[in-house]
Amino acid sequence: MSNPPQTLKGFRDFLGADARKRAWLKEKIRIAFEKFGFEPLETPTLEYESLLLGKYGAEADKLIYGFEDRGGRRIALRYDQTVPTARIVAQYKNQLIFPYKRYQIQNVWRADKPQKGRFREFTQCDADIIGSTSLITDAEILAIYASIYLEIGITSIKIKINHRQQLIENILNSGITQEQVFTVIQSIDKLDKKTREEVLEELADKGISVEKGTSLLDSLEKCVMSETLKTILGYVKGMGIDTGIFEFTPTLARGLDYYTGLIFEGIIPEYGVGSVGGGGRYDNLIKDLVGVEMPAVGFGLGFDRTLEAAEELGKIPDFKGSSRFLVTVFSPELINISLEVTSLLRKQGIATECYLDSGKRLDGQLKYANAKGIPFVVIIGPYEAEKRIVRIKDMADREEREISIDALSKVFA
Amino acid sequence: MSNPPQTLKGFRDFLGADARKRAWLKEKIRIAFEKFGFEPLETPTLEYESLLLGKYGAEADKLIYGFEDRGGRRIALRYDQTVPTARIVAQYKNQLIFPYKRYQIQNVWRADKPQKGRFREFTQCDADIIGSTSLITDAEILAIYASIYLEIGITSIKIKINHRQQLIENILNSGITQEQVFTVIQSIDKLDKKTREEVLEELADKGISVEKGTSLLDSLEKCVMSETLKTILGYVKGMGIDTGIFEFTPTLARGLDYYTGLIFEGIIPEYGVGSVGGGGRYDNLIKDLVGVEMPAVGFGLGFDRTLEAAEELGKIPDFKGSSRFLVTVFSPELINISLEVTSLLRKQGIATECYLDSGKRLDGQLKYANAKGIPFVVIIGPYEAEKRIVRIKDMADREEREISIDALSKVFA
Repeated sequence: MSNPPQTLKGFRDFLGADARKRAWLKEKIRIAFEKFGFEPLETPTLEYESLLLGKYGAEADKLIYGFEDRGGRRIALRYDQTVPTARIVAQYKNQLIFPYKRYQIQNVWRADKPQKGRFREFTQCDADIIGSTSLITDAEILAIYASIYLEIGITSIKIKINHRQQLIENILNSGITQEQVFTVIQSIDKLDKKTREEVLEELADKGISVEKGTSLLDSLEKCVMSETLKTILGYVKGMGIDTGIFEFTPTLARGLDYYTGLIFEGIIPEYGVGSVGGGGRYDNLIKDLVGVEMPAVGFGLGFDRTLEAAEELGKIPDFKGSSRFLVTVFSPELINISLEVTSLLRKQGIATECYLDSGKRLDGQLKYANAKGIPFVVIIGPYEAEKRIVRIKDMADREEREISIDALSKVFA
Repeated sequence: MSNPPQTLKGFRDFLGADARKRAWLKEKIRIAFEKFGFEPLETPTLEYESLLLGKYGAEADKLIYGFEDRGGRRIALRYDQTVPTARIVAQYKNQLIFPYKRYQIQNVWRADKPQKGRFREFTQCDADIIGSTSLITDAEILAIYASIYLEIGITSIKIKINHRQQLIENILNSGITQEQVFTVIQSIDKLDKKTREEVLEELADKGISVEKGTSLLDSLEKCVMSETLKTILGYVKGMGIDTGIFEFTPTLARGLDYYTGLIFEGIIPEYGVGSVGGGGRYDNLIKDLVGVEMPAVGFGLGFDRTLEAAEELGKIPDFKGSSRFLVTVFSPELINISLEVTSLLRKQGIATECYLDSGKRLDGQLKYANAKGIPFVVIIGPYEAEKRIVRIKDMADREEREISIDALSKVFA
């Protein structure tokens, strides 16, 4: 081959331990969702392009992986999970039971400029409750979001909360016009990355005088929690979640224009990269997307960032070793006893490999165990085979101990 | 909206119970692989189109979903998992530890004509051991393949086995020329779907006289198991697998031309659709694909067919109900005690929903439980709240029993 094969830029291969860490996190998230009675949803990788175009704004349209299939249809790869879910709600509305509580953990594709931490294919984890305006649903969304981090063991999670309607009223009360509200929200949204002065400058560029801007920020900072948020947090507490992890943040804005009520964002203080996800209530979006009146509340959880944070905080088990035991093979004549011991350990659910070549010397086999991070090696030579015992070598301290094959089935049971 | 949103033809949405069944099977397969020390692998959905084109034959090339990205690169969706794995082996050969035992459960895309049971996006489950010619690896591949079905509870699995080299020698011994061998193999491969006469006719069309064809089929049927296959099955037995599930089938051919040794195919007798997967040894393929000398043995397991078979045989748990309990809400004043009970059940890992609206009458809430297949409903009215008890209604027999909230945490522990 002239060109060595390579991975496309912005795409990733996940080998061994990396793939296992991802599977571990997905399973943790799945367990949290199932406990709350959320149902999984899988939608196809490809959709009609028309379903996606124009839904995320002109800038986003350029990031959609769209193409013409062999039947002349314009199709596109999933860009997010909200639009496909809106399609599901419209298409299956007569068979779904509402409120529809669904979660979705699938990949999305964006033809973005690849850079550190930004990929063209990445995993999203979304959850939404569709079809209810009850504040219990807002509370349940906050509770499940918090529970996922608690399930992973990230107890330091902080969740900033605010109410989009309250924020808008504050902006209007500062003498800003209805037309300017959303652009002002987008500037306020930057308060966690930029200084107050930089945000005031940006507002000035948008025609909001520094006086008006200052008065707005002052009034936001003095703002107290609305009764609605208090009620929601009361329910969250009722669900057994420590409400100390929630922080009322009257300047929290969230960049997207479709939120209509509760908004929130998760932060892991020890993890410096910023928000690990967030969401809120969006009562008009599904109608705008697919023409079906359907209030909703939900979130998107940053899978890659959460995995990275969990790793930095030491919450992920050590997945270096794919197996607990390597059973060595002394000689071709002794293969069967090695296979027997391998099978005995596997039957107990213990990840065990048998060395796959009967012609290799023992030190080569120990090297293999070492390279793969397998913690225990089982050695069975002619003496051991005769006595129906094995020697188990702990690769960490190189200590060996003898154990009978019969006892082996009980020790690890 | 003028056009109601719809799923692309040949693609599928998986809602609720269907998605959970798929997750259940994936988890069963994962557990089997981990016990054998196989490592998971994930490769990107998109690859350079040049990696895929010409690798599967001209017919297959037409089924590849390929397109030009915004950077002018020709890219394509994963068509199978063998070619991406060959890329991985070439690209990471200095960091992988050989023999490399990997499994991969991901989707593939084929622009095939959609028909019953054939989809354009479907899940494949592959496992391979790369980098060894030891017969223990052949045995391990058979053992893990069998173990997956045993793990699912499909104990009736039959695995037909044969040896490609032995088959080729038999064909050549029947006076068929080297050039005709592969086309003859393709005809013999149809013996499980066509009659002997039809196969002889097809061979005649290919210039093999009925005499020669008959003599070939006769000699194949009389053929006995080679020493190689006997050795492999001996190792499989050593691994604790009942070898009664293997059937030496000297006419088993497998359609693909790259097999070089062991070939096998899984059949579930009660499930009429045919093979549920298979594989074999292919010592030259990786070299042909990516220029790296690397013997290998492996299989592809038909995920959809295996799931369908498991379902028909009643091996899949009932996933209708997403939750075990629905905790009803009697009135807005009693929300918090309902949330408390919900939380108490969830803390024990029991999938529990709290009804998400405090304004709905009890019979409406029972209807919701019924529609979602939730087997138990918890009722807490003012009397129960006062006494700190709950009534648990079994939705199957409509029986109710009382239990104290304190006891509730012990009963299900």
